[in-house]
Parts: sequence; C-alpha cells; structure tokens
Amino acid sequence: MENIMEKLTALCKRRGFIFPSSEIYGGINACWDYGPMGVRLKNNIKTRWLNALTRLRDDVVPLDAAILMHPRVWEASGHVREFADPLVDCKHCKARYRADELGCDPTAPDAQCPTCGMRGTLTPPRMFNLMFKTFMGPVEDEASVIFLRPETAQGIYVNFDNVRVSMRKKLPFGIAQVGKAFRNEITPGNFIFRTREFEQMEMQFFIKPGENERWFSYWKDERMNWYRSLGIRPEKLRFHDHGPGELAHYARAATDIQFEFGFGSDPWHELEGIHDRGDFDLTRHQEYSGKKLEYFDEETRERFLPNIIETSAGCDRTLLVTLVDGYREEEIKGETRVFLGLHPGIAPIKAAVFPLVKRDGMPEIARRIHDELMRRFEVFYDESGSIGRRYARMDEVGTPFCLTVDSQTIQDQTVTIRWRDTLAQERCAIDRLGERLTDLIGGC
Amino acid sequence: MENIMEKLTALCKRRGFIFPSSEIYGGINACWDYGPMGVRLKNNIKTRWLNALTRLRDDVVPLDAAILMHPRVWEASGHVREFADPLVDCKHCKARYRADELGCDPTAPDAQCPTCGMRGTLTPPRMFNLMFKTFMGPVEDEASVIFLRPETAQGIYVNFDNVRVSMRKKLPFGIAQVGKAFRNEITPGNFIFRTREFEQMEMQFFIKPGENERWFSYWKDERMNWYRSLGIRPEKLRFHDHGPGELAHYARAATDIQFEFGFGSDPWHELEGIHDRGDFDLTRHQEYSGKKLEYFDEETRERFLPNIIETSAGCDRTLLVTLVDGYREEEIKGETRVFLGLHPGIAPIKAAVFPLVKRDGMPEIARRIHDELMRRFEVFYDESGSIGRRYARMDEVGTPFCLTVDSQTIQDQTVTIRWRDTLAQERCAIDRLGERLTDLIGGC
Repeated sequence: MENIMEKLTALCKRRGFIFPSSEIYGGINACWDYGPMGVRLKNNIKTRWLNALTRLRDDVVPLDAAILMHPRVWEASGHVREFADPLVDCKHCKARYRADELGCDPTAPDAQCPTCGMRGTLTPPRMFNLMFKTFMGPVEDEASVIFLRPETAQGIYVNFDNVRVSMRKKLPFGIAQVGKAFRNEITPGNFIFRTREFEQMEMQFFIKPGENERWFSYWKDERMNWYRSLGIRPEKLRFHDHGPGELAHYARAATDIQFEFGFGSDPWHELEGIHDRGDFDLTRHQEYSGKKLEYFDEETRERFLPNIIETSAGCDRTLLVTLVDGYREEEIKGETRVFLGLHPGIAPIKAAVFPLVKRDGMPEIARRIHDELMRRFEVFYDESGSIGRRYARMDEVGTPFCLTVDSQTIQDQTVTIRWRDTLAQERCAIDRLGERLTDLIGGC
Repeated sequence: MENIMEKLTALCKRRGFIFPSSEIYGGINACWDYGPMGVRLKNNIKTRWLNALTRLRDDVVPLDAAILMHPRVWEASGHVREFADPLVDCKHCKARYRADELGCDPTAPDAQCPTCGMRGTLTPPRMFNLMFKTFMGPVEDEASVIFLRPETAQGIYVNFDNVRVSMRKKLPFGIAQVGKAFRNEITPGNFIFRTREFEQMEMQFFIKPGENERWFSYWKDERMNWYRSLGIRPEKLRFHDHGPGELAHYARAATDIQFEFGFGSDPWHELEGIHDRGDFDLTRHQEYSGKKLEYFDEETRERFLPNIIETSAGCDRTLLVTLVDGYREEEIKGETRVFLGLHPGIAPIKAAVFPLVKRDGMPEIARRIHDELMRRFEVFYDESGSIGRRYARMDEVGTPFCLTVDSQTIQDQTVTIRWRDTLAQERCAIDRLGERLTDLIGGC
C-alpha cells in the first residue's frame, strides 16, 4: 500500500496532477502545487460539495470569509491557548518529534531516539502553537500580530448574525465554506494527507438546543452518502466515534469518517470530522466580542444561543481518497494497464476526442466535435501518437470516455465511445453526443 | 459617485454580498468576508474567467500553486529588494501616508501634514516592504522566514517546466491561475478596491522571443473583450498604456485596463495589467535556482528562454466593477426601484420562483418548479410577503428572472417570466422553463 502512494506521487507529477511546491528550489516542506489535472479535479470536488450542501438544499448557504481575521477570534476560539502540540527534539541528531507520536516517554532515563539510536538525548516535551503568525501594518510589534487561520469554521461563527439577518434565515440552517487554512505541523507528510497549507470544506449547522442528537445523526448519514456518491468503495469508509476521553474541548459528541488509506501502523485515517459543538462557539464569541449572538424564536418567544453541528472535511484529503481509491492496475495480454477510476462527475477531463488516423478528413471532424462539446464539458483533443497510446494517457488521468472518429464515421456520422473502466465500446451519432455525455456523466 | 460606493457598501451588507471581516470584533482593517450572494457572484466570475482562458481554448491550462513558496523565489523575482513603498508618518497626529500619494515633499521645511495641518512634523520617507512574513517550522529564526505570496504569477514561473512536460505543450502556450495574494498595503481602502488579502486571476503566456508585440496586442484585445462579455459598459473601460518612465523593472511594455470607478481625483483606476515581461522571469529563476529552464524548439533546433506576456486581473476588483457598473436606480410612479444589472451568467441567483399567493396549490407547483430547476441552476424559492417585495429583494441581488405561478398556471401550465432590467413579462410553459432559462442565461 505504501507502494501505491509512491506510484501515485509519480503518476501525479508525470500527468500534471500535483507537483512539489517550488520544486526548482528544492521544494518547500509539505507544500504542493496542483497542476492542470489536479486543479480541475479539485475544483470539481469543491463544486460538487458546494452543490450538495447549498444549491441542492434550501437550508444551507455559502460563505467565503477572509483568511486574516481579528486576533481576538483566536483567543475566543481557544486556539491561542489550546492549539498546540508537544514538541520533542533529539539533542544529538536534531530529529524532531511530536511527543504523542514518539512511542516512548522522552523524559525516561533510557529513552532512545528512534532516528539515531542514542539514549538520553531527547528534550522534555514543550508545547508549540501550530498557528502561523504574521504582522499587519508596517510595524512589527505585539499589537499588530495576526494569525493565518488554522480552520475556516471561525469565519462562519463570527458571521452568524450577518448571514442570518441578510438571508432572513430561521433555525435550523447552515453556513458552508471552502477555503485555505494553515497549520505549522511538526510532522507533516504522506503526500497531500497532512500539509501545512491545505483546503477545508466546512459546514456549521445552527440548531435549537435539544435537537443535537437528531441533527448529529442526520449529518453523519448525509456526509457518508456524499463520499459514496463520489464513487468511493463503501468498504473503504467507516465511522470512528470518539469516546469521552478523545473529545476536543469544544465537542459534546464527535465522529470521524475514516478511509482505509493504507499507510501507517493503523491504515485507517480521518477524512472528515462531524462534531456536536453545543453552544461553545457562540457563547465564547458573545463573551469575547461583547455582541449578543442570541436567536429569538418567534414561535416560542424564547431567546437562546443556537447549538452547532459541524461537518469538517479536508478538500486535499478527499482528492487523495479519489486517487487512492481510483488507482487501478490491470493485466491485459501480458501488459499492465494503469487507470484512475474517477467518478465522471469529478474527472478532470470528461471526454477525449481522437481521429483514428491523421487523414481522410478525420482530424477535421474530430476537431468540430471537440469544439462543439467544449462549450458544455471539459474535453481534450489529441491526434498525436498511436490510438493505443492516446487511450493510455487518458486512462492515467481518469478520463471516463474517449470518442474516436474512424472510417465508419465518414459513412454514418457516428463515433465510438470507449468506456475507461470496462473498455466497452458503443457507437453514438455525432449530433446526440452532448445528450449522451450528459446522461453518462450524471448530475451535480 | 462616492455616494454610489456608500450605497453599494450598505446594499452589500444588507443583501449578503460582502461583510466587514470579523465585524463583531470591530473589524480588521481592509479585510472583507463574502456572504452567500457575494461568494456565488465571485465563484461565477472565477469560473467564467477560467472557462474563457482554459476550457474554451487549447493553448492555456490551469494551475493552483501553494500560497507558501520557497523564500528564494522572492529574491529571484525582485520582491525582497524592490517590492516596497515609501512610508511617511506625521510625528504629531500619527497619520500615515505613502510618500507618492502625499502630494508634497515631506522633507521640505514647510511641509504640512494633510490630516492635522501641522508643519514640519512629517518624517522622511522610509522604504517599507509590502510582503507579509511568517515562520515555517517551530523555531522563529531567520532561516525559517517565509512570505505570503504578494502575487500568484511566481507560482506559474517556477512550474513552467513541470506543466510543459506533463501537458506535452509546445510554444506558444499559457498557464492560468486563480488564487489569494497578500500585500501589507500602507493605504488600503475604497471598499474592496484595495485590500490586504485579495484574489488574483493571472495568466502567463509563454512565447518565442520576437513574437512579443503580436501576442501583447492579441491579449489586450482578448482581455478587453472578456470584460465586455460580462456586460460592463464599453464607455466605462479604457486602456492606459505605460510610458517608459512608468514601466516596472520586469516590463518591456505594459498597459492597464481601467474602469471609471468614480472615486479619487482621477476617477479611472486599474482593473487589470497586461505586461510584456520579456525573458526577465525565466532568466532570474534559472539563475537563482540553478535549473535550466530553456525551451528546445524542434523545428528550428534552437534552445532559448521563452518570453512571457502576462494578463493580471483582480478578482475582487472585477466583482466591484460588476456591482458599480450594474447599480441602477429608477423612478417608477414616484418610487425608487434599485436593482443590480448583473449579467445573467454571473448573477448569484439565476431565477426566483414565487407562488403569487399562498393558496390554490400555487406553493406546491412553485416548489416543484424550483426543485426541478435547482438541478441545473442556482434558483431561489420565496413565498413570504407581497409579490412586490419579493421582486424588490431579487432586484437588489441582481436576479435576472423571476418566475411567478398564478391562477393562469393552474389552467394552462404556464408561468410568468419577469425580466429584471426591462420589467417585461412573458409566459412560458413549465416543461420548457429549463430550456428557456438556458437560452436566456447564455453560455460559459
């Protein structure tokens, strides 16, 4: 399985999904750049998430808050005080560990550094805050210290009233946001699984107190179904409920949606967290800002602070799951065929258009088909190399359908549609291609 | 015109387009959060830009590079040395100025502070670098200083070879990117015109040396046409060519696309810059990284560094233009009707669906129409308040079409389509609404 991650990393670079950031300068630790195929895949995942959460329902609206927020936000949220990991250094070889991942007590007299094997060289754990800090305004003093947000959720909480009033929303309703967050992780790694700059897809659902269990359960189901709707194999997905000892300071109940990534001693890792946050967030922001955030229920004539059910997903992790779950190797006539079994709805390219050969007017017909289809879909035209090589390249970027113009096309105005996963072929009239592809790709 | 900016700022907050960031904490200077209507408008603008630049043509591909880059990138680009503004303080009233915007020489003996009117209180200008810096890794020392990117363009240059090879591209070709950038501006302001966190839409077009004039001229036309395709009034747009004294250190030729925003002593302000950057960027990155970035031309068998034509647009500024240009007040029967004349392709909501009254089965029919249309468009259902108030709310968020179910609907299965700009009305059969809206909204 480690092997698949290596193969994927190589495929992602070779086929333009993901490059190491600033690679010509030797890279920058745990930052990645999305190439042409990667950015399309990522944008499709984000759009699909936003559509499922907001466009296809009336009770959740989108938001896009700034990355730079007022520093008091992070005092209210608890991040200034709590958002820290215990850091351990080896004084001999300079290796660096998160104490909770070290596997031993670094203060024990015979504690041994896992990297260099020396004993007694580990420092005691010291707490290290994971927020990146910077300075706003020209003078670097304490007054102007601000942070890069370590999560997008706080941008939603501080806008609760602005969104509620401007959208005339009544409980229950949610606010959904896609955006970058930054954490100065001590031990980033596993390709794009844990990075210092990453993108979140978070939704906060505001409810009446007392309805927590019902909505927590509702959103667990909704979110699991969303991953399944991306075509992820159900047996690779599971819930991991947090016991009382595992709960974060803000959570009354929590579950992770995990995927069997395969790396590490436990192959299952978190993909999304679903949390019953009670009234922790609005209570704290009301207290720290001095602004009333209560909701007035017109039916019961009561005033109260709404409770919150949160669904917090990693966009990069979801993308990684589509790659890991979609990666396929097949033996065909002694040759290995590699393809990405991406759901057509998120595939970077929906269809490729090929002339079988570069003569008999086939390139011109294929061009016309391409130019017509590109108004509705991301399509790709290719006439270079053998048809087999062109199919192989499209397989590796997960293109679900290849349309080939051949000699029969000239006679009956049909093309071959070749299916990536099954290699099945069908003929389709050129003037019905748009409709057929719409059916095959499916809705939002 | 200042008046329109004030009205727009109020409308944007009232109708959920744009809120001051961290407003419950008193705000954070020159940062803004996009509310439900704003994020939809912004996403539509970004998608339209990406479609025009990449999906609808074969020679430009998208990229999404990380915000955090290797610090040497900013030495190579010249930002560490050059990206600074001259800062002047008033020692008396603490007002802060950009020397080039001050309108007088602060070192002259009788120089007077424009804010407090005192003479001789201004400091000499000192250069202030506009890059936000932060620290990667747990230790705050010089070795780990990194910057928030002040522009997205460098992410494209350092990925030139990765994109070229993985996409098998030959010159000329372009790389397009949408993403956040950060500048510690001394004098931000004018709503979302100049902010410290903003979003860029940049495209770098790599060409053979010698073809610069032709491609510079080509991209000027393309980009101007793009703004016109958004429905911006042509008389509000113009080119401003830079004279030799205005050129930045990297530019051989430059023009701005300006819009008549209306604020300031000169009402025209930059919306997009188009630059002939020659081989400055690849030369510098080749020198600083030690990696060859030359291109081998298979036809002429020559090796050379490509030249670059850049188109650099502000996403937030484009959004502001659509608001300023779209804002309309009309007198109708002694009442003022306010509406946003947004192009249907970028309007946050494409159509609203109303039952005329809350009886006779009209809400049920309207709901069914809404639920059918939402699979293809962002639509909005509303049954609260008078039909006039519902129209007015949709006018203010720029919804181009309102569909009303009335008593005639029950007889003949048609609804009224009301046009936002002209108030014209037409009847349309319910089962033809999807098709009709597709025609009215237009393509990508």
